[in-house]
Amino acid sequence: MHIVCLDLEGVLIPEIWIAFAETTGIEALKRTTRDESCYDTLMRYRLDILDQEDFKLADIERVIGTLEPLPGAVDFVNWVTAQTRLVILSDTFSQFAGPLMAKLGHPTLFCHELEIAPDGRIADYKLRLPDHKRRAVEAFKNLNFETFAAGDSYNDLSMIDTADHQALFCPPERLIEERPDLKVARQHSELRACIEASLKLT
Amino acid sequence: MHIVCLDLEGVLIPEIWIAFAETTGIEALKRTTRDESCYDTLMRYRLDILDQEDFKLADIERVIGTLEPLPGAVDFVNWVTAQTRLVILSDTFSQFAGPLMAKLGHPTLFCHELEIAPDGRIADYKLRLPDHKRRAVEAFKNLNFETFAAGDSYNDLSMIDTADHQALFCPPERLIEERPDLKVARQHSELRACIEASLKLT
Repeated sequence: MHIVCLDLEGVLIPEIWIAFAETTGIEALKRTTRDESCYDTLMRYRLDILDQEDFKLADIERVIGTLEPLPGAVDFVNWVTAQTRLVILSDTFSQFAGPLMAKLGHPTLFCHELEIAPDGRIADYKLRLPDHKRRAVEAFKNLNFETFAAGDSYNDLSMIDTADHQALFCPPERLIEERPDLKVARQHSELRACIEASLKLT
Repeated sequence: MHIVCLDLEGVLIPEIWIAFAETTGIEALKRTTRDESCYDTLMRYRLDILDQEDFKLADIERVIGTLEPLPGAVDFVNWVTAQTRLVILSDTFSQFAGPLMAKLGHPTLFCHELEIAPDGRIADYKLRLPDHKRRAVEAFKNLNFETFAAGDSYNDLSMIDTADHQALFCPPERLIEERPDLKVARQHSELRACIEASLKLT
């Protein structure tokens, strides 16, 4: 019996902070872990900007609600859930992912959470568990599942390397060069073919 | 962050073997663990009957495809998946559950598998893991989830006793008497209220 673990942003939905920055026009929110390697520093910087711009959770949800899953993602999720089990492993926050998860049909999502103040402001963020993607794949293996994992970036490598089968999806060129051992899918149809071949789905 | 673990048969869908027996008129398939306490003996007896009646997997899927989820189950599943995470923990087999899972919108299901012979006959059954319901709840707790579990019968007690919050759903009277410490829900609206109160969903 098998289970498919997928990263969310860049695989099924756009990068939320980037899309949010583009929709709202707040250029400063385009800063990513490539510009600021310390995740905590980056998140505090982002939350400060949301405060300065007076964005409360409801405003942010409204903006994110205008975003759409990546083309083909809804059909792809429907295919995976009909064939096998799908658990999405993401470092996003449930409140940000919510509107897009609804558009994907609410597949199972393991992620983190924001702390919301009584006035609706985002007070803080709370990581559920360090390296939770890898630990979830390990847990599924211990529950006797054959595991397939795919993601687009560096923070997916620990789950990808832990899984029985794996692929990169639309990764940056640098990652492809660094990890020539990993299969690369650039469209959902290619990722589907990887999953079919790995898990022997017929 | 929380996760809801539910039993399948008797909670979201009818008891598959009973419903299959009623649909096909094969009375002998109404035998359950109450009549034959050894699960392996019971399963071999059932698979022998399917062979005698010349039911191949495709025939069985066709019959099961005529069954419907319990009244209210589709709305209930939609509510749970929109509010939090849902993983269904069942001792059924993926091939039997498939047609009904489609009608529930393919929520995530951890269960067991049948071995299908090249001619489509059910050759054997394969338990993925002993006591897998309890072990899944333990795994989710280790992944830092607050857990809620509900089921209708004795084989749900180990997961129910392991979870942070729990309820019985339409259990037999004997179980209610034996476990007066457990909350009992008799409708999906009552189970929803239990989940809302336990996980503080607003």
